Amino acid sequence: MRSKIRTVQPKPLFLNNENVCIATDFYQLTMAAGYFDCKRNHTSTFELFVRSLPEHRSYLITAGLEQAIHYLKNLKFTGMYLKYLKNLPIFKNVSRGFFDYLRNLRFSGDLYAVPEGTVVFANEPILRVTAPMIEAQIIETYLLSVINYQTLVATKASRVVHAAKGKDVIDFGTRRAHGPQAGVLAARACFIGGCVGTSNVLAAYELGIPAVGTMAHSWVMAYDDEYESYKDFRKIFPHDTVLLIDTYDTVIGSRLATKIGKKLKGIRLDSGNITLLSKRVRKILDDAGLKHAKIVASGDLNEYKISEMLNKGAPVDSFGVGTEMVTSKDAPALGGIYKLVEQEKEGRLIPKMKFSEDKATYPAKKQVYRIYDNNGRFKKDIVGLIDEKFNTEGLLLRVIKNGKVLYKTPTIQEIQKVAKRNISLLPDRFKRLDCKASYPVTVSGRLRRIRDKTKRSLGTS
Amino acid sequence: MRSKIRTVQPKPLFLNNENVCIATDFYQLTMAAGYFDCKRNHTSTFELFVRSLPEHRSYLITAGLEQAIHYLKNLKFTGMYLKYLKNLPIFKNVSRGFFDYLRNLRFSGDLYAVPEGTVVFANEPILRVTAPMIEAQIIETYLLSVINYQTLVATKASRVVHAAKGKDVIDFGTRRAHGPQAGVLAARACFIGGCVGTSNVLAAYELGIPAVGTMAHSWVMAYDDEYESYKDFRKIFPHDTVLLIDTYDTVIGSRLATKIGKKLKGIRLDSGNITLLSKRVRKILDDAGLKHAKIVASGDLNEYKISEMLNKGAPVDSFGVGTEMVTSKDAPALGGIYKLVEQEKEGRLIPKMKFSEDKATYPAKKQVYRIYDNNGRFKKDIVGLIDEKFNTEGLLLRVIKNGKVLYKTPTIQEIQKVAKRNISLLPDRFKRLDCKASYPVTVSGRLRRIRDKTKRSLGTS
Repeated sequence: MRSKIRTVQPKPLFLNNENVCIATDFYQLTMAAGYFDCKRNHTSTFELFVRSLPEHRSYLITAGLEQAIHYLKNLKFTGMYLKYLKNLPIFKNVSRGFFDYLRNLRFSGDLYAVPEGTVVFANEPILRVTAPMIEAQIIETYLLSVINYQTLVATKASRVVHAAKGKDVIDFGTRRAHGPQAGVLAARACFIGGCVGTSNVLAAYELGIPAVGTMAHSWVMAYDDEYESYKDFRKIFPHDTVLLIDTYDTVIGSRLATKIGKKLKGIRLDSGNITLLSKRVRKILDDAGLKHAKIVASGDLNEYKISEMLNKGAPVDSFGVGTEMVTSKDAPALGGIYKLVEQEKEGRLIPKMKFSEDKATYPAKKQVYRIYDNNGRFKKDIVGLIDEKFNTEGLLLRVIKNGKVLYKTPTIQEIQKVAKRNISLLPDRFKRLDCKASYPVTVSGRLRRIRDKTKRSLGTS
Repeated sequence: MRSKIRTVQPKPLFLNNENVCIATDFYQLTMAAGYFDCKRNHTSTFELFVRSLPEHRSYLITAGLEQAIHYLKNLKFTGMYLKYLKNLPIFKNVSRGFFDYLRNLRFSGDLYAVPEGTVVFANEPILRVTAPMIEAQIIETYLLSVINYQTLVATKASRVVHAAKGKDVIDFGTRRAHGPQAGVLAARACFIGGCVGTSNVLAAYELGIPAVGTMAHSWVMAYDDEYESYKDFRKIFPHDTVLLIDTYDTVIGSRLATKIGKKLKGIRLDSGNITLLSKRVRKILDDAGLKHAKIVASGDLNEYKISEMLNKGAPVDSFGVGTEMVTSKDAPALGGIYKLVEQEKEGRLIPKMKFSEDKATYPAKKQVYRIYDNNGRFKKDIVGLIDEKFNTEGLLLRVIKNGKVLYKTPTIQEIQKVAKRNISLLPDRFKRLDCKASYPVTVSGRLRRIRDKTKRSLGTS
């Protein structure tokens, strides 16, 4: 029987600059072929936004634009991918000119975007793309997949960091992220949301952020004697001796750790009742004259648990947060969508909208205008047309013009600063962890009138 | 102000054969350095398993082994990554020989694994690695990240497919997956779990599975007239005319679709009350003599909604499932762990375990023995030592021996068959969607005795 099983060479399923061209939903390509053959490749505008915020969230922190820009700069269809598409039966009636068009396709349109690290709310465009319909359509899936995930995680991280009240939060989530690349993207988004470092070495290398981590239980278990394992670790890492003390018994582990002496930089607790244990261990450390030694907590932490621990006075100095942060576990998907809002036909701009049940959209190119109170804090947002004036700058900035990137991508440290400043300007009631507050986002009168007019004019024959 | 902002070249954050060497947690590398300098690079055995099943789940479908094998076959540390590590301050006291060791490191150990598509339960080893401690340690993070995610999604997909009672289920989830690679990994895992295709073109290309999809709302919105958009689509895709009918009004949309005539292959419903609408639309199609036309449903579906729709008699022929399946939304993380169970020292095998609160492990190399009932269905599992005999083959097969891959990786179609067969042999009570049943997994007497003995002998000084 065995010999009949067909076998393959194991594949890593990595993305790269070549195969991203087909990292899209199949219907984007069938529609693209249709637009081509039906001569419907009009200049079109799509907007990416979130219809409603995930549970418990009153705001989002935008993230993922850098990866969107890289994709648009590098998008092209090459040999074997074109050949694969050409040979699919569904494309049998499609003119061969379509595949030549695809071969020459580069992103030639405009991209406007809210910079990464910005606080935004439901129904506010985060990206706006204006391009020939085929280009604008094909890019939907990839744009959504980079913006949705990083925005989801940057938002979650900002909640965790807020709960930690100034204590350090470190991303420990790679092993539970949704695959190897998700671990790297999560590390980036967590840093934007305010984390101070990541356990993911590749992310640290690529992004220039701190790689953090010391020992696992396996280090301790590799020795017959727990204290021997601590001594050896101190010998090799004399300035970074943070010891994991819960492999066998946390309290005994903490006493052994004190025997390390002044070189002990800290201990990590990864199980049990961390509030109680941290108090007990703090006293053991203090009594041993190790007031400088830090307590790191980890183990299925989230913003709710951290908040409760700190409210109960847990003397924890930093938090390693994994699974819950990188999967945004209490709300593991962001429902960002990308909708056609306008097309140019024979020199005229035609507003577009859909009005499916509960899924209606606003037509026309939009801008988000943020209004500040007298203290410079966020007061309300107005979603309006791009040429409206509300005595404030629009949140969407020009990023790409006619295919050329004009935007200077900030470093991740700069983006983290933007996010920190945004969060500081957001009134406290929107930062509460357990309940959703509705930030005032209004629609301008002009936009409402265009919507009503479009709704009347559109519809089925 | 602007000019002061430091800028970077946008990066895609892709993984590749070179950078996977540092796609790991930082502590794996600090520990590795410690094992090297403390001469603790003993042959060690780690096992990967799940301590408890996610909510509502009574079983798991294993997936991700193919990517694990690719990684182990290709793992090596090259120039710039070694240089990066060497220069990190924490490694200052580490002997330079460690970096030479890393440069020459290839996976030289053994891997045993439960084949993909197999039903497994909590506390059953899915992978077992025996290798020099440094190798076995460094690979932990990547192995967990590929096995955890794909197993999570294959399991979720198998639930969705089970709920669909023989109707087709298609993966539509890329845009909500956790980044671009997660979309591809999800497509693979969904297919293993029983889906018939994916919207993800890259996944379809790489895996040789069907790419599925027809039109989005934007196709309809690009026209001034809905029916015109349908006619054009039929013209280009005469054998694949599946029309999305809910852009404006579903019932009107379905009447327009019938005007397409016999060429209409089907319609898609993406919003509203799908049970009611599908019945209404089915009647409209039937009355127009289009009994052959299929109804595809999509829009935030999951196993619970599908089950309810079918129980209420919704005449849906296939289901496009996205967000909920690829994020495993009701249980978005699998807590797979990787624990040291044994080390070889001076020719002796030393069993290893931890006994942190609620996180204790079983020592020694283990095997999973599956016992069948008289009808050939799964009856119970025994987790025992590798040399025990229970008149049944162990689930863990030899995959890599001394670094050489001996296992023939099956095609994904073969893996899907394995999963289908496994699910068919699992008694029905473990497939219920809403409540968790506890499959009988026992620990052999010999393993229990080793555990008790190890617990007594270990401990803190």
